[in-house]
Amino acid sequence: MHSRRPDFRSPSKPGELALLHQIRNRAAQGPFIGLRLGIGDDCALLRPRPGEELAVTTDLSIAGRHFRLDWHRPESIGHRALARGLSDLAAMGARPLAAFLSIGVPRELTTSAPHRPSWMTHFLDGLLALAAVHKTPLAGGDLSESPIPVADIVLVGAVPQGRALLRSGARSGDLLYVTGALGGAAAALQRLSELAGTATESPAHPPRIPKKLQSILSPHLYPRPRVAQGLALQRRRLASAALDLSDGLSTDLAHLCEESGVAAEIDAALLPIHPAATLDQALNGGEDYELLFTARSTARIPRSIAGVPLTRIGRILKARPGQPAVTLLTPQGPQPLHPHGWEHFS
Amino acid sequence: MHSRRPDFRSPSKPGELALLHQIRNRAAQGPFIGLRLGIGDDCALLRPRPGEELAVTTDLSIAGRHFRLDWHRPESIGHRALARGLSDLAAMGARPLAAFLSIGVPRELTTSAPHRPSWMTHFLDGLLALAAVHKTPLAGGDLSESPIPVADIVLVGAVPQGRALLRSGARSGDLLYVTGALGGAAAALQRLSELAGTATESPAHPPRIPKKLQSILSPHLYPRPRVAQGLALQRRRLASAALDLSDGLSTDLAHLCEESGVAAEIDAALLPIHPAATLDQALNGGEDYELLFTARSTARIPRSIAGVPLTRIGRILKARPGQPAVTLLTPQGPQPLHPHGWEHFS
Repeated sequence: MHSRRPDFRSPSKPGELALLHQIRNRAAQGPFIGLRLGIGDDCALLRPRPGEELAVTTDLSIAGRHFRLDWHRPESIGHRALARGLSDLAAMGARPLAAFLSIGVPRELTTSAPHRPSWMTHFLDGLLALAAVHKTPLAGGDLSESPIPVADIVLVGAVPQGRALLRSGARSGDLLYVTGALGGAAAALQRLSELAGTATESPAHPPRIPKKLQSILSPHLYPRPRVAQGLALQRRRLASAALDLSDGLSTDLAHLCEESGVAAEIDAALLPIHPAATLDQALNGGEDYELLFTARSTARIPRSIAGVPLTRIGRILKARPGQPAVTLLTPQGPQPLHPHGWEHFS
Repeated sequence: MHSRRPDFRSPSKPGELALLHQIRNRAAQGPFIGLRLGIGDDCALLRPRPGEELAVTTDLSIAGRHFRLDWHRPESIGHRALARGLSDLAAMGARPLAAFLSIGVPRELTTSAPHRPSWMTHFLDGLLALAAVHKTPLAGGDLSESPIPVADIVLVGAVPQGRALLRSGARSGDLLYVTGALGGAAAALQRLSELAGTATESPAHPPRIPKKLQSILSPHLYPRPRVAQGLALQRRRLASAALDLSDGLSTDLAHLCEESGVAAEIDAALLPIHPAATLDQALNGGEDYELLFTARSTARIPRSIAGVPLTRIGRILKARPGQPAVTLLTPQGPQPLHPHGWEHFS
């Protein structure tokens, strides 16, 4: 055991120094509004605008649980880790202020050779490319050697006081909407598992993805957090409640109903199912990172925001004891829709 | 691999539910000033006071690197994880607003039996006891099964704009101070390793600590972050620069010199060496979590703050090319003091 800690701010010796300098240099492509002090001191300093409150979320990614080294290229792992946090900010209607990365990796994944950047470099490529899209600085973090790769991503955002989109704001009579398409990530994950199963490469390396498959796989490998859409819903005061679809529609809608004390009805015929996905994947597949939101029936919801369609899929009802929280309307009649969430500890 | 994620806000099924309910219920012993919304939505919401900026730090703890299951009881592991983050806030002179915990643990560590709480329960005992001392709510986090225990602690604090204690504020002529005593944690760690080596218990369990040894071991097992002292230094405008002693005086002082562009001289005869420690442990031992700070020579530094002594140990000099950044004055004359930091990747 070691009694000392390195982190992004305290490089001590050459090997660590090189890696930390890489992170520090690549993280500092600013200036960024709201970031007063980035990597280099005991804490980062963030300055929200007057009247704003802070939204904070953390998301842990662990090899073998949230990604597989033999399925996912490091760029995708870095992208997905950050996307989860950005999606949480989007669901609150918050603008990103800064990201923090605590990462533990086996030593060999940090070793670069000439013309052969390390796994870590590619991981940062993916993470920082998405961060740049959302003008979000990497403001700090921590670094350790670890027997398995683990990464905790922290996102801090800002939202005007009292204006955050909560899960608890839905009322009976509200209409229910989603952004984008549903089930694409689950369909892509299934396709990826088939590809990985037939791959002839070393099991330690992700399969090469044929070009024509890349767009089918991208909802899983490179999901797009709906930051602009969440911000617009908040600024235009359109949504009464919101969350992001990380666990799947059936599970996340149940969370929204529970937090708001309501029930919901969705219409299978209205669902914007991804072209590659089944109805089951649209209902129960996770990691689409679309936004699920409610709005008063009088609200004028645009057809799209920043190029992403908004689709009405159902409505909010009064909760009734003994009745299912979520009902799915199908050609065969209404049926209860139970959460198909997944849990780590059973 | 699983495509869905549980976290503190989205319990899905009974096993996870029980653990998450435990965390949620125990985290919510509020109300807490500044915490608008804790566990239960996509993000937590924090509300700083007008004119404050936010200090953010993350600290990753990994089994086998930062703690050992066969050396450390889970209460100590939880305490130490939180203490690292609180100490970072202390070093900035920030008041704690909220803590976040991303934790991955093997399933068996979450399993409770009647009258036999799980490892996880004891971990939370240690973490939440220290959080209560510093009135810091656990406001969110993430949870996953993991082959090895990993915990990332995030602390968010608040400090008036422009008033944070930085590493870069030291000037030639400033005097150099530390809080408390030095080397106690390193001495305790050495004693603990001896105890663990002779323990007759199962290697999977930490040794029982005889009562008379507990106070000697406490600087390592239960370090006390100097939150009140950092806050007082900031509020009374006493310090020109500060950081916390996590890597050891020789290493951390070198960081301060580098960030401030200065050199420093410390006097071995002035060091407040812990009664159980050697000079080497006081200079190079890590994890004391005392504050190292500088003050103008005209500042009136009190002898103690909130019962913790402040000791002048040296002074800040001009940096000179080719000269060591840190010099140690000894009875045998001055000698260069090089950082004895530790690095993960060499």
